[in-house]
Amino acid sequence: MFYRLFDLLFLCRMAEQKYSYQQLFNFTKAIFQKIGCSIEHADIATQSLLSADLRGVDSHGVARLSGYVRLWEAKRVNATPAIRIIHETPSTAVVDGDSGLGLVVAPFAMQIAIEKAKQVGTGWVSVQNSNHFGIAAHHAMMALPFDMMGIAMTNASPLVAPTFSVDKMLGTNPICVAAPAGSEPPFVADLATTTAANGKLEILQRKNLQTPDGWVQDKDGNPSNDPHILKKSGALLPLGGDRDHGSHKGYALGAIVDIFSALLSGANYAPWVPPFPAYVPMPAQQPGKGIGHFLGAMRIDAFRPANEFKKDMDHWIQGFRSCKPIPGEQKVLVPGDPEREIEAERWEHGLSLLDAVVRDLNEVGDKFGIEL
Amino acid sequence: MFYRLFDLLFLCRMAEQKYSYQQLFNFTKAIFQKIGCSIEHADIATQSLLSADLRGVDSHGVARLSGYVRLWEAKRVNATPAIRIIHETPSTAVVDGDSGLGLVVAPFAMQIAIEKAKQVGTGWVSVQNSNHFGIAAHHAMMALPFDMMGIAMTNASPLVAPTFSVDKMLGTNPICVAAPAGSEPPFVADLATTTAANGKLEILQRKNLQTPDGWVQDKDGNPSNDPHILKKSGALLPLGGDRDHGSHKGYALGAIVDIFSALLSGANYAPWVPPFPAYVPMPAQQPGKGIGHFLGAMRIDAFRPANEFKKDMDHWIQGFRSCKPIPGEQKVLVPGDPEREIEAERWEHGLSLLDAVVRDLNEVGDKFGIEL
Repeated sequence: MFYRLFDLLFLCRMAEQKYSYQQLFNFTKAIFQKIGCSIEHADIATQSLLSADLRGVDSHGVARLSGYVRLWEAKRVNATPAIRIIHETPSTAVVDGDSGLGLVVAPFAMQIAIEKAKQVGTGWVSVQNSNHFGIAAHHAMMALPFDMMGIAMTNASPLVAPTFSVDKMLGTNPICVAAPAGSEPPFVADLATTTAANGKLEILQRKNLQTPDGWVQDKDGNPSNDPHILKKSGALLPLGGDRDHGSHKGYALGAIVDIFSALLSGANYAPWVPPFPAYVPMPAQQPGKGIGHFLGAMRIDAFRPANEFKKDMDHWIQGFRSCKPIPGEQKVLVPGDPEREIEAERWEHGLSLLDAVVRDLNEVGDKFGIEL
Repeated sequence: MFYRLFDLLFLCRMAEQKYSYQQLFNFTKAIFQKIGCSIEHADIATQSLLSADLRGVDSHGVARLSGYVRLWEAKRVNATPAIRIIHETPSTAVVDGDSGLGLVVAPFAMQIAIEKAKQVGTGWVSVQNSNHFGIAAHHAMMALPFDMMGIAMTNASPLVAPTFSVDKMLGTNPICVAAPAGSEPPFVADLATTTAANGKLEILQRKNLQTPDGWVQDKDGNPSNDPHILKKSGALLPLGGDRDHGSHKGYALGAIVDIFSALLSGANYAPWVPPFPAYVPMPAQQPGKGIGHFLGAMRIDAFRPANEFKKDMDHWIQGFRSCKPIPGEQKVLVPGDPEREIEAERWEHGLSLLDAVVRDLNEVGDKFGIEL
């Protein structure tokens, strides 16, 4: 069950083509340079974007490259942003992303969080005027080599109906927390605050399957199992699905992400967050600037010696891995395990792209004279 | 639906007795003094404990007073703790609770977080060697009068099985985030990272009702609807319920709380967290000290002017309150609304205690010569 995405891609391999990471990296970086990014920014953006493909979050990776290009064409993305701190204290900062790619703005902000953590123990950066930042895990994990915990969140365009609501008010608003371990690989929990994110619906669409209960509702707020329901004005549901199963908690978590990312920074929030598809008009009367993120870094030894923490993390991880599994189910996993296993496999055997994604990339390549 | 607890208590009122807040305050404070707490500590502990009753979280309030007394009798609670900082940086601290009441230790730690936030923008305190701290919201809300956001988490004794696991590895590990608003009341989200917490099972037990799917499993990991299942070696389930409904996310959130509260502080973690009932033996080979908490404070104006933030919070809150509700459901609520409404009602009309709770309190009172 944990490997559904991976299994399905495997089943679909007839409609796929394989590329090495380096091939995709060179292509993607060249495209970002063609839209005007500096070499450095193109490099950072490409690393951010492809980290999603490596970790098996195919919905947020190179499949979105054409979407970012269209945002640039619509003048919603500034390829040469002057990203800057507009306010700070020893442990905090607000960053103005100058409408840059979130793929570049978020690592910039995370770097500031890390520098502040070096100085005063922790660093917390709220970001306004940015765009979609790819996967949260990539940014949170930047803290790990410094023996820090990393935190990353972002708000996103409104697809989620709060408990009891017909209206869509929140994005899938993910939270990632990454913590280093010793001999064990790091703990990396990266989760949308919905029962299931959009990428899971796309998989069911391709397989012509219904969604489980508690994933989506229709335009009037009735429970639905239609994976195409978002195109029919339906909504994703907060983690929990309905009130009896705790959806008010998923709703609260999505709201917390919105407050940290946008209310603290001056970005747009709730239903006013700009949409990712460039063809969707911007919301009227936007209260803030662009999309908001929140990045944090906590130095482990601001609390206790890093080697003691890591020894305990190893013990913690080993404890969970050796849980007695439910008969018929797979072994108990530690957050970050599935993505790391996919990443190892993809480094070795390359990344499979669906034919539709390859066609899309070829179209983008043709536009700029770059070959995939 | 949101008011189930409240409605059920109303239905059960034949088996209840009413007390004013002041009556319960005087009684509880006197009991804490009788076990040896200083006047100041007894006062703080009573405020922490009764905040649960006021906010409608009856499972965590005065109904637990006898449980705290039994922990003291079992020498697991130190009534005269020397609570102290054992490590700190400008934005962080680790506090040793000296086996004190979590009801006292957590406010002490939160005060440090607030002082650090005054100095460097944010403050983050991880706590070891503590005991159960009541409800997270009480501690997080301490930040609000300072125009700060407050964060509170705690780990707890293992009742929750991770996704795919038969073994119980985590507590209900709640997270609270409180954020000030302007003309609107504050946003206060306080949530256990399980589909439902233990208190909800107790309500169903009294009503002789089954649980919805996704709340509990039996001792072999099979889905169950038995509200008594915890007494039969069953487990609570992480928010989401099962893998198809996102339980791996609830599990990850519970794990994050454990890491912040215990791995960062040196407290016990995972299945080694001390149990609340004094008759349950302590786990063998404990890796840390006592129970762990994590408290945080973020000064709003470390990010942007507080008045701008509060104006946006008002706009945010009003936006959610005016969502179109699903036909047949109640209006859309903002996290903190139900608890605040219950609190207003209870201040005015007093607090109803179940007969069983009154008997329990009278027994404790008799022991120390204090009348309820």
